[in-house]
Amino acid sequence: MVESVRVIGAGRVGSAISTRLAERDVELREDQAGLVLLCVPDASIADVAREVETGPWIAHTSGATPLAALDPHTRRFGLHPLQTFTRARGPEQLDGAWAGITAETEEARALGFELADIVGLRPFELADEERALYHAGAVVASNFLVTLHEAAAELVEAAGAPAEALEPLMSRVLENRFELTGPVARGDFETIEAHLEAIRARRPSLEPLYRTLTQATEALALR
Amino acid sequence: MVESVRVIGAGRVGSAISTRLAERDVELREDQAGLVLLCVPDASIADVAREVETGPWIAHTSGATPLAALDPHTRRFGLHPLQTFTRARGPEQLDGAWAGITAETEEARALGFELADIVGLRPFELADEERALYHAGAVVASNFLVTLHEAAAELVEAAGAPAEALEPLMSRVLENRFELTGPVARGDFETIEAHLEAIRARRPSLEPLYRTLTQATEALALR
Repeated sequence: MVESVRVIGAGRVGSAISTRLAERDVELREDQAGLVLLCVPDASIADVAREVETGPWIAHTSGATPLAALDPHTRRFGLHPLQTFTRARGPEQLDGAWAGITAETEEARALGFELADIVGLRPFELADEERALYHAGAVVASNFLVTLHEAAAELVEAAGAPAEALEPLMSRVLENRFELTGPVARGDFETIEAHLEAIRARRPSLEPLYRTLTQATEALALR
Repeated sequence: MVESVRVIGAGRVGSAISTRLAERDVELREDQAGLVLLCVPDASIADVAREVETGPWIAHTSGATPLAALDPHTRRFGLHPLQTFTRARGPEQLDGAWAGITAETEEARALGFELADIVGLRPFELADEERALYHAGAVVASNFLVTLHEAAAELVEAAGAPAEALEPLMSRVLENRFELTGPVARGDFETIEAHLEAIRARRPSLEPLYRTLTQATEALALR
């Protein structure tokens, strides 16, 4: 049972989790905690873990880092909140998001699931050896979504239209559960050629992105 | 002034606009309407326009089609709702979305803006010769967003995690106004290499997409 936690790291994730744990009456303490939760940069996890005395449970919140980074601890698990955090928001950022729980024992798995439930995350099991593939998917969905918006904004603004006009459109794509419409879906290659011509003439640096995504969308439309 | 409209086409856009016009007490009529609004597939606009008797105003709702497709009509404009529509929703799909208004005269522009206001769209001016670039941006933001989600879902599911877990993440990226976080933003090329290795081993068809988007994201992070 999660009764007392020492959270190491007060970045975006650490702050949100600490505040939420306090809200849920979990004791936050610097010593003698039953669980040490490392909310530190990926590259620091192994170093910080080695500094922590063995005995209590230890966990990290990284998506990409294997559990071996928590050596020499053996009572350990991973809890990766599949969410993007900002300092402008508080612990409500956790609500409704999912968390990948990586564990080597049933006890560790149960503790990871319990911690997720306490902080408001929906837990699922994530195999340690699948982290790279899983985390690549998370990066595609979140970081590359920023890039996609940026590319679209660049094109729309170059055409003299307001980039903010893209936001209701993108929100609706999510609300409509990613229903594919548009020229690729209807096999309108003339329109796609016209796009490519305009991009080549005005924003040539975006041509590879447009081409690659058109090809991937064609593959999707064929399914 | 928009007093009576004949809407031609009862697809996704035509249905939403007709219903909204009726809600706003604009008279919908088959004959003698002051404005004929073509909500038909892009490829049919020129044919349908030629069948309409000249005299009243005429407009189309295409993003990619130039106004010349409305020849021989000269009292004309374009109103492109920058939104994705589904048959599962009604005219509320228009609310909050923007619309590109293309016009050749001040009178046509004013009428296009008025029509947008009536149906609940936020109008902006869109130059006829900029349509291809503008529409390419719209396709990147909406259709390619579907593709991005599909690619992410494929990776996450291949790793044994639930694809639905991506949805709160993607929604938050929008809510956080596209703030870039993650391995590219922090220059963590080791993690990116691990992603590429996993993708090559398990979902090689997604490697070009991942690579191209990583490069575009790097360019973005450097700004």
